[in-house]
Amino acid sequence: MQVRGAPLIGAAAAYGIALALQEDAGDEHLTAAARALAATRPTAVNLRWALERMINALQPLPCQQRSQQAFLLADQLCEEDIATNSRIGDYGLKALRGLAEHKTLAGKKGALNILTHCNAGALATVDWGTALAPVYKAASAGLDIHVWVDETRPRNQGASLTAWELTQRGVAHTLISDNSGGHLMQQGLVDLCLVGSDRTTASGDVCNKIGTYLKALAAFDNQIPFYACLPTSTIDWQLHDGVSDIPIEQRSGEELSHIEGIDERGQRVRIRIAPVGSPIANHAFDVTPARLVTGLITEYGLFKANADDLQRLQETLKNE
Amino acid sequence: MQVRGAPLIGAAAAYGIALALQEDAGDEHLTAAARALAATRPTAVNLRWALERMINALQPLPCQQRSQQAFLLADQLCEEDIATNSRIGDYGLKALRGLAEHKTLAGKKGALNILTHCNAGALATVDWGTALAPVYKAASAGLDIHVWVDETRPRNQGASLTAWELTQRGVAHTLISDNSGGHLMQQGLVDLCLVGSDRTTASGDVCNKIGTYLKALAAFDNQIPFYACLPTSTIDWQLHDGVSDIPIEQRSGEELSHIEGIDERGQRVRIRIAPVGSPIANHAFDVTPARLVTGLITEYGLFKANADDLQRLQETLKNE
Repeated sequence: MQVRGAPLIGAAAAYGIALALQEDAGDEHLTAAARALAATRPTAVNLRWALERMINALQPLPCQQRSQQAFLLADQLCEEDIATNSRIGDYGLKALRGLAEHKTLAGKKGALNILTHCNAGALATVDWGTALAPVYKAASAGLDIHVWVDETRPRNQGASLTAWELTQRGVAHTLISDNSGGHLMQQGLVDLCLVGSDRTTASGDVCNKIGTYLKALAAFDNQIPFYACLPTSTIDWQLHDGVSDIPIEQRSGEELSHIEGIDERGQRVRIRIAPVGSPIANHAFDVTPARLVTGLITEYGLFKANADDLQRLQETLKNE
Repeated sequence: MQVRGAPLIGAAAAYGIALALQEDAGDEHLTAAARALAATRPTAVNLRWALERMINALQPLPCQQRSQQAFLLADQLCEEDIATNSRIGDYGLKALRGLAEHKTLAGKKGALNILTHCNAGALATVDWGTALAPVYKAASAGLDIHVWVDETRPRNQGASLTAWELTQRGVAHTLISDNSGGHLMQQGLVDLCLVGSDRTTASGDVCNKIGTYLKALAAFDNQIPFYACLPTSTIDWQLHDGVSDIPIEQRSGEELSHIEGIDERGQRVRIRIAPVGSPIANHAFDVTPARLVTGLITEYGLFKANADDLQRLQETLKNE
């Protein structure tokens, strides 16, 4: 958990391969390194995607060229990630502009209110972020926006990463508990949801940070657009039923029972916040069925979350 | 926030009146004390109910009898609360037995899995609790049950109160983040939800701890029974649209940005867990529309969450 965020996990894995090949560039070591890196995280599919891309490019090369080429490939993957996320931001901005105009036409005042869960920002990618790329593009374009930031228990990526990122970039935002989104939506205080995705099925199911499904349900119940922002590398074209087929990472109960923060003397301390003796379950992701997803914002544009529209996207990718 | 839980707030307010009358038993002081106590919490309706009951009983009495009578009335209110919750437990147990039999008939193995949000246990009432009363009755009756305990941010009443209560009584349970319930329901790991209620409308809308609505949406989406357990004193017969008409208490952002716990030296410390400079919104309750509520378990039995069935309940109360 030193590295998190599906795109960043992919980029880090690429450099992991490059470092492994510095040591030993043989086939066996390449395969072993890829297997070890793949085993670190079961849910995000970018990891597998990045590793496969590295292996496919490196295996045909003579051993003495592999290490240097691996670093070049990893650099290239990072450059691509930045460009991909920037394009996601551009397509997302288009959607935000449309919703802002719609809000004005409906006679509603105030900023366009975006709710986001977890951190799908620059800190989860090489740069820009996925769900936050449209936010940053909108802020730069002078659109009046405000972001509701879910705390995102148990690792509090919303509070510690998203709120921090938005503060750094001067984007108006408010931190809320994960429990609050439904109420805010009922009260007309959310205009859309933007989340990332750790794995997306060929049918449009979105696997993302645990709790995303609950927000999608509330958005659907209140007729609020719910968009997932994702590079096409997070799409697992083999899978069609996300709820039954995507493996969900389970993490230590200590993520829930303990928390770090700053005490009154300014020291960083770790405290226990759950009673001793109570068992804890800690699932890291959940799956939002495609029927609850308004659209998928990718580097190739906006797609509906269904098999037909995604097949169209797959054709585009094949023709690249 | 020294006293929480709708029934316990009512009981505490009754003793508050008794204490105030010890000082000065005049009409003016009685009214002023009731007004001051009513202003402490806007959402839970038991507070108003208990205060009205005290005033109606005490105002006709001569001043010199009021203080003593107030203590007797408050004692009586507490005894009634215990009996009420015990009856809620009995009716709830009936529902749990039915669901356990249904589970067995469907060929499913293992304990009956109950998800609860916040704390509606003995610590929220005079004894038994509301949502936890059926749990305690079921455990005593030897029913094989297991409780998923929502942490319940931002005050963590699930982790600190419900998990503690269940540990004390030896009831099998697992602490989870508030974000987890949807995933567990999708995976067939929840058989029913039991929650309390701070205020219930005459149409069956349930106002309860923030985040309850999200769990009700997930239960509905997965065809899982969702019950609210409540004494009839939490019903606000004047209100019909909970989402628009129930005032939702907003509390300090520090409840979200700071948290108390035990450090490595065993000391109780308070730490900051959110970045400085990010605004915080902290709504304490939300409203679950009646359409998502399977039933209301009261001291007079199980009622459907709709105006007709609740009118039948109101007739019963009038004939008491």
